[in-house]
Amino acid sequence: MITQKIKGVLKMITTEDFNESTFAWPKGFYSDATHIGLKNQKLDFGWIYSKVPAKTAGVYTTNKFCAAPTAKTKEIVSKNHELQAIIANSAIANSCTGLQGENDVLTEQALVAKRLDISPELVGVASTGLIGAFLPMDKIEKGISELTLATNTDITKAILTTDTKAKIISVDFDIQGIPCKISGFAKGSGMIHPKMATMLAFVTTDIAIADNTLQPLLSELTDITFNQITVDGDTSTNDMVLTLANGLAGNAPIKENSPDYQLFKAALHFVLQKLAQKIAADGEGATKLVESNVLNAQSSSDAQKIAKAIVGSNLVKAAIFGADPNWGRIISTIGATSADFNPKTIDIKINEFPVVQQSLAVDFDEAQISNSLKKDIITLTVNLNDGDFAGQAWGCDLTYDYVKINATYSS
Amino acid sequence: MITQKIKGVLKMITTEDFNESTFAWPKGFYSDATHIGLKNQKLDFGWIYSKVPAKTAGVYTTNKFCAAPTAKTKEIVSKNHELQAIIANSAIANSCTGLQGENDVLTEQALVAKRLDISPELVGVASTGLIGAFLPMDKIEKGISELTLATNTDITKAILTTDTKAKIISVDFDIQGIPCKISGFAKGSGMIHPKMATMLAFVTTDIAIADNTLQPLLSELTDITFNQITVDGDTSTNDMVLTLANGLAGNAPIKENSPDYQLFKAALHFVLQKLAQKIAADGEGATKLVESNVLNAQSSSDAQKIAKAIVGSNLVKAAIFGADPNWGRIISTIGATSADFNPKTIDIKINEFPVVQQSLAVDFDEAQISNSLKKDIITLTVNLNDGDFAGQAWGCDLTYDYVKINATYSS
Repeated sequence: MITQKIKGVLKMITTEDFNESTFAWPKGFYSDATHIGLKNQKLDFGWIYSKVPAKTAGVYTTNKFCAAPTAKTKEIVSKNHELQAIIANSAIANSCTGLQGENDVLTEQALVAKRLDISPELVGVASTGLIGAFLPMDKIEKGISELTLATNTDITKAILTTDTKAKIISVDFDIQGIPCKISGFAKGSGMIHPKMATMLAFVTTDIAIADNTLQPLLSELTDITFNQITVDGDTSTNDMVLTLANGLAGNAPIKENSPDYQLFKAALHFVLQKLAQKIAADGEGATKLVESNVLNAQSSSDAQKIAKAIVGSNLVKAAIFGADPNWGRIISTIGATSADFNPKTIDIKINEFPVVQQSLAVDFDEAQISNSLKKDIITLTVNLNDGDFAGQAWGCDLTYDYVKINATYSS
Repeated sequence: MITQKIKGVLKMITTEDFNESTFAWPKGFYSDATHIGLKNQKLDFGWIYSKVPAKTAGVYTTNKFCAAPTAKTKEIVSKNHELQAIIANSAIANSCTGLQGENDVLTEQALVAKRLDISPELVGVASTGLIGAFLPMDKIEKGISELTLATNTDITKAILTTDTKAKIISVDFDIQGIPCKISGFAKGSGMIHPKMATMLAFVTTDIAIADNTLQPLLSELTDITFNQITVDGDTSTNDMVLTLANGLAGNAPIKENSPDYQLFKAALHFVLQKLAQKIAADGEGATKLVESNVLNAQSSSDAQKIAKAIVGSNLVKAAIFGADPNWGRIISTIGATSADFNPKTIDIKINEFPVVQQSLAVDFDEAQISNSLKKDIITLTVNLNDGDFAGQAWGCDLTYDYVKINATYSS
């Protein structure tokens, strides 16, 4: 929720200022996907195209083995701040593939550029799947020749790996009385699952935005959304979040700290957070979404660090799978972080039930809390009573199926 | 292996300089244990006593919620550098128990001191088990009255929680022609498993050692042994390693950098490493011990960081459970650390089989490696080819039983 002072009146921007709608592409965006034989029968290759070059911001993996497509896309977006197309495949990550991998990316860019009659530097490339395998360039080339300028949503399925469902969201809102749309989609089922090469998220919007405005906004919002989810704690070589704004809604370009900017920020935050939650909820083997809320910390980074540690603890995750109100694991996890806090003033709630007050156990009805832990969404609230800052993170439970999926993947 | 220059001759100290023997207490150490009703029917309470005060060094949890017994023991060992007795229980951690927990520790110390006719400040206290529960002091008092100055090894069982076996080792060696012994035991089935309150290790020896020598040595060796194992990545509130040297072997006190010191260091290193490996091999649900060796790193700390990250990765652990030679997960884990290295020069072996050379896949026989991953001990070797430093770490596989144990613990 964002508070914005407009002409002396405090206006609270809430989700009521924009509407979650059925997924559709913003003005001027086209998309199509196909099956080129990387996956068994399923859609595995697709693109997004914007009628005009779109202002583009990106956030990329920090893994030292950055995959070839991720590195190339980062390079061109950092230099030009715009893209007009994105080509994406699943099943093969084109990571740890050396010079051949880099050349395959250049070839892929050139083929898409030729087909769409645009510069190769306007083509972003994204891959997700097995590390160490090369792209079958004959199939890629054939695929590019088959894709059309449709407006279907097949690409939201084509990028999936072990995901059990597509993660999509559209929101509508007015800026300067002009209807605008943000539509995002993501894959990831394992915040991090390196072999499957993890998370991708693409957000498209038709708003017009001023120069040098989208990148800092995306970076800020990624830190409190995608960077606050975890499924298994690893970081892949192919992680990428791209946001494209093509300006075709026709509004005057929005500038930082204007009321329009605050509304757009709230809507984009909503889109990124929903996609992040959808990834966490569909974590490998997951049966539950776990949200941790840390309140009254000494700093935002302390609050976020603790929130993420809680949803990242195998012991907490296994306890939640087992509907076990085991607060000792939560408090131990808090204590093992590098965050600063007073260890004597902590209150903990599991869902709505207090289990710890002032760092000591309170009497609670174990059966009642265990029952509430059988819900699909679990909330863990930690009040540090030691400051004014809050943070959130999202994860999932640790289940037999997580072990099964990851023990039997390649055999 | 330690190389020591003696009178101009290089002498290599190897494990042949000391003998692993059947577990027995060093001269002047006594021990007994009993069942006081904390666990169901099993041994759960015991002590160690030395005829004379023993020089003592300790390493303790870094968790901000340090349990009352751990904090008290740390306080007295840091002040006096000696203990004459240790009292230990399993099943209840006496952690997050506030003032009452602290008072219970003082009472326990006083009761043991009275029974043994020594100062309470010579009594170390260790607890392991459920966080947030209070010690039943009537049972503790009765237990202390029942313990005797025996020389049995029951205490090595009494400290266990979800461990499937006791972890014990004795080594014999001569110093100045005088036979000496080091005997150690540990518990832990989860490097860290906060609710069960994790790892304890006690090492006793009859050697005489000079002042201010044991603590730096224990700290140095703990960093490359117990601090390099991981089962699930959490840090408990009760972790403690204590080493007691009572001097009753009768050797002249050994001083730093003497040949005797190097031999003692090698023997103590061997004891700590064996106990650490035994904890990792008996990790909750584990079917295999996993050792990672990182070679030719830019620094020791980089090598150790990478080694520990590899055995700590859920994805690597699940792949090893599934006998899946999934090197992409290993390389992703390396890339996600904060260590410095050249990402283009990495060689990886799974057991004796090369799978990556110069950061690129090599052809390998998947069935052959998968078969070798069915052994009880798995070795992962990473050669960074970027420096002169090495590091090791130990862990275990991630199995259905890990999830089962931790999902169903309290219900």
